[in-house]
Amino acid sequence: MRIRTVALCATTLACAAAHAQSSVTLFGIADVNLAHGSGSLSKRTQLASGSNASSRVGFRGREDLGGGLSASFWLEAQFNTDNGTGVATNTNNQASGGGTAQAGGQGLLFNRRSTVSLEGAWGELRLGRDYTGHYRNRVDTDPFGVVGVGANQANVGSLAGTTSTRASNSVGYFLPKLPGGWFGSVQAYLGENLSGTPTADDGRGFNVRLGSTFGPVEVSGAYARQALAAGDIVSKNVGAIYRHASFRLTGAWYEDTTQSATPFSGKGYLVGAIVPVGAGEVKASLSRYGSDAGAQPTVRKMALGYVHHLSKRTALYTTWARVRNSGGATTALNGSTTAANTGSSGFDLGIRHSF
Amino acid sequence: MRIRTVALCATTLACAAAHAQSSVTLFGIADVNLAHGSGSLSKRTQLASGSNASSRVGFRGREDLGGGLSASFWLEAQFNTDNGTGVATNTNNQASGGGTAQAGGQGLLFNRRSTVSLEGAWGELRLGRDYTGHYRNRVDTDPFGVVGVGANQANVGSLAGTTSTRASNSVGYFLPKLPGGWFGSVQAYLGENLSGTPTADDGRGFNVRLGSTFGPVEVSGAYARQALAAGDIVSKNVGAIYRHASFRLTGAWYEDTTQSATPFSGKGYLVGAIVPVGAGEVKASLSRYGSDAGAQPTVRKMALGYVHHLSKRTALYTTWARVRNSGGATTALNGSTTAANTGSSGFDLGIRHSF
Amino acid sequence: MRIRTVALCATTLACAAAHAQSSVTLFGIADVNLAHGSGSLSKRTQLASGSNASSRVGFRGREDLGGGLSASFWLEAQFNTDNGTGVATNTNNQASGGGTAQAGGQGLLFNRRSTVSLEGAWGELRLGRDYTGHYRNRVDTDPFGVVGVGANQANVGSLAGTTSTRASNSVGYFLPKLPGGWFGSVQAYLGENLSGTPTADDGRGFNVRLGSTFGPVEVSGAYARQALAAGDIVSKNVGAIYRHASFRLTGAWYEDTTQSATPFSGKGYLVGAIVPVGAGEVKASLSRYGSDAGAQPTVRKMALGYVHHLSKRTALYTTWARVRNSGGATTALNGSTTAANTGSSGFDLGIRHSF
Repeated sequence: MRIRTVALCATTLACAAAHAQSSVTLFGIADVNLAHGSGSLSKRTQLASGSNASSRVGFRGREDLGGGLSASFWLEAQFNTDNGTGVATNTNNQASGGGTAQAGGQGLLFNRRSTVSLEGAWGELRLGRDYTGHYRNRVDTDPFGVVGVGANQANVGSLAGTTSTRASNSVGYFLPKLPGGWFGSVQAYLGENLSGTPTADDGRGFNVRLGSTFGPVEVSGAYARQALAAGDIVSKNVGAIYRHASFRLTGAWYEDTTQSATPFSGKGYLVGAIVPVGAGEVKASLSRYGSDAGAQPTVRKMALGYVHHLSKRTALYTTWARVRNSGGATTALNGSTTAANTGSSGFDLGIRHSF
Repeated sequence: MRIRTVALCATTLACAAAHAQSSVTLFGIADVNLAHGSGSLSKRTQLASGSNASSRVGFRGREDLGGGLSASFWLEAQFNTDNGTGVATNTNNQASGGGTAQAGGQGLLFNRRSTVSLEGAWGELRLGRDYTGHYRNRVDTDPFGVVGVGANQANVGSLAGTTSTRASNSVGYFLPKLPGGWFGSVQAYLGENLSGTPTADDGRGFNVRLGSTFGPVEVSGAYARQALAAGDIVSKNVGAIYRHASFRLTGAWYEDTTQSATPFSGKGYLVGAIVPVGAGEVKASLSRYGSDAGAQPTVRKMALGYVHHLSKRTALYTTWARVRNSGGATTALNGSTTAANTGSSGFDLGIRHSF
Repeated sequence: MRIRTVALCATTLACAAAHAQSSVTLFGIADVNLAHGSGSLSKRTQLASGSNASSRVGFRGREDLGGGLSASFWLEAQFNTDNGTGVATNTNNQASGGGTAQAGGQGLLFNRRSTVSLEGAWGELRLGRDYTGHYRNRVDTDPFGVVGVGANQANVGSLAGTTSTRASNSVGYFLPKLPGGWFGSVQAYLGENLSGTPTADDGRGFNVRLGSTFGPVEVSGAYARQALAAGDIVSKNVGAIYRHASFRLTGAWYEDTTQSATPFSGKGYLVGAIVPVGAGEVKASLSRYGSDAGAQPTVRKMALGYVHHLSKRTALYTTWARVRNSGGATTALNGSTTAANTGSSGFDLGIRHSF
């Protein structure tokens, strides 16, 4: 919702007398679905959350400061519709700052985004917790938005690192809308460790993303580097989107390298399509990710889905996916388990409601 | 509050261009009270929360989809007004998914309700975390709404199970408004365990509730069954409400059986009354619950309360209650402790404010 | 924001039919900053939250009950903009009820304030979790509002106790606006322990605050006492504010005594100033706190800051501060560490946005 607001003034002299008018938007998504997974070792059926779009609730707002300048904030918490819990964040971009299951259920917190921005003709300065730049190429090209059983097959083992999706303690700069359709961002994040120790830099990282739009085609590339105790990780990826009046094609390629005791790297790709059909849309993707460590564990995935729009806010959806493992990989879908080098399949059937 | 909303569209092709109008209701209750309990072993005085109605804050909304169909969501978090903490949920309907006290204070989460619904002339399909059907007969018939020192005496020991009040991972169907005043629901919930183990079914359960209104009388019965590692639990209950212009009488009867290593069962009843008096109402109840295990622990309770309405939203209230234990039971009120087969009494004195 | 509300009625007879109109204010602050600290042992750089004003989000509202009476509620949760986490509360005003770091990140809860009030010409009765009265003299006189690197130097070691800032389970009474500018409050809080044990009183406490305004000068004093297992704490303080058209001067003096096995006490003071300069304001303070325990650990601090108002809601700010330790004290700024009797310095550079 957008709502008139009487903003709180901080307790400062200049601001003591009056309250400023403002507007805040309350927004969210409640998405819930039956999720079944089947592997060679076991099956599982769950009521799951957010398999079309992650369930969330948030507050955001923008203030015009005059002279082309504006300030804004964005606070967004993920939740699980099936049981009401929130989802953990990572406080220091290291393994020690991440979440483990809490007995009472993880409370709500602004794990998806917690930022304050200053924007002008020169672009946007954004501070706090946010998506990392290199993740945007992954999510924008995946017909399934990296959620649910159809999420693109990306990363294996420790190659994901702790900032493959989001980073806390980040300072980001985004280019303004440029002629020629260029867009881009740089983002640096802190591990917040004490100086003078061998692990002082752990958690620290940065990424750069640059892209452009050429008629119906959008292409962008990203480079990211993060220091971690288990070995620094360098990620590179490229994403492309072709927008046609009656369908959308996407492709992505990624490579991640870790400087662990025994360095290794992984590579993957995705090709996807979204085709509107009547009041709905069909989605499909093929993806693959493999590592050069040991026996070269590799996972191949195919996913097919249909989303039926009941309105602009509400949709029914179903997705079916299957993975094939090789090189010792054991990836299984929707919480099932499968033996090395066997397959696994699963489906989602649910409803997504935006507010 | 009801507020105009600009709904978030999920990142899908069909929805990319426009935002839909919607309305969200922000609602809640802040209830706080002095709570004193006295038993034969010790006394305790607390500032407590929600002894007239559980403190809560939530968001809910409904969208008309046309053709008699509507979609809705309901997210509701309980909190403790006395210290600001939230209240745990249960993620898998088993002992392992329940809450233990968290050092920093349990964060807010949608433990009371977290659902998405699709409704039509055919009824309502509701997915997520919600009251169980058999709980409704308990809460609707209790003049004290199963909160505060006057809450009906129900369940002892392990007979309560984990879904006696709410269930996560549930799929529910509710009958529409029917001629003749019939109402009812069926609800199934998942434990979400891996298949192929002896405990694969734990947490899974279902309940059926059916009732009808005959003039001023409403009667309903419920049956529930849940698989649990400690022994499956079967619960049956019946509730009745008689609505007169100048008072309300209620009655309930319940029976719970557990298939533990040594099976046992419990039975209980409640009779209650609410009588409006001037700007307030007097509430009273007698309840009893006893088990056939061992020495047949049994608890008898009487409760008397008065609620003074300052407005439709705000009330002052006080409740006094006393329990008598027999068969080795040690139930004590408001956090006090009492020796086996002795009594305990307590009172609440507070304010409830709805928003 | 202020918004029309349709209040939830509790499930009582009198309230079954209609919903009452109401209004709720959603309010908050998102404040984020780079925070650097440097000590003789190590340095640290962080993205921090709330160094000009604590980041928060809350709901509050008021209902006119007629006859000069009103009811109100205030629910306010702190959060960390840098990573999205919430902040712990204390459930029993004892060490056991306080927060330790949670692996998944502390969820949001109403740690800053969670109260229900009843107000009339006779004053205000406020129940729940709130600031303690003696803290108000500290915060009102500190140009930096007791947050960020410039926060006044107050308390050392265990002298702070658990209710030096806020108390849960509190019952407070606030004087109404009185002729002559008198103001004041009394507040009692419960530890909620079982009776009949040596620690039955732990966590319990009270405070009294009384002040008055004499033209441009405001003076107030407070006395607080709290029972704690580690030793009861008695705190006394006095604060004074001189408001001139073109600046504000503040001063405070505090003394805290603990009845631990080896009793000791601490004393401190602060002098501060806020001077508007163009679209901003310059802040400065000198503060000192020292204990008579052992070698008499003592900390002296100076802080200088500038806040540049971009609007009534948004400001850029920077603060620099330095501490000097003596008597074995090791206080260091912004997460750095320093050896006994050395100094430490640090700065904040950030943005604060209110909504």
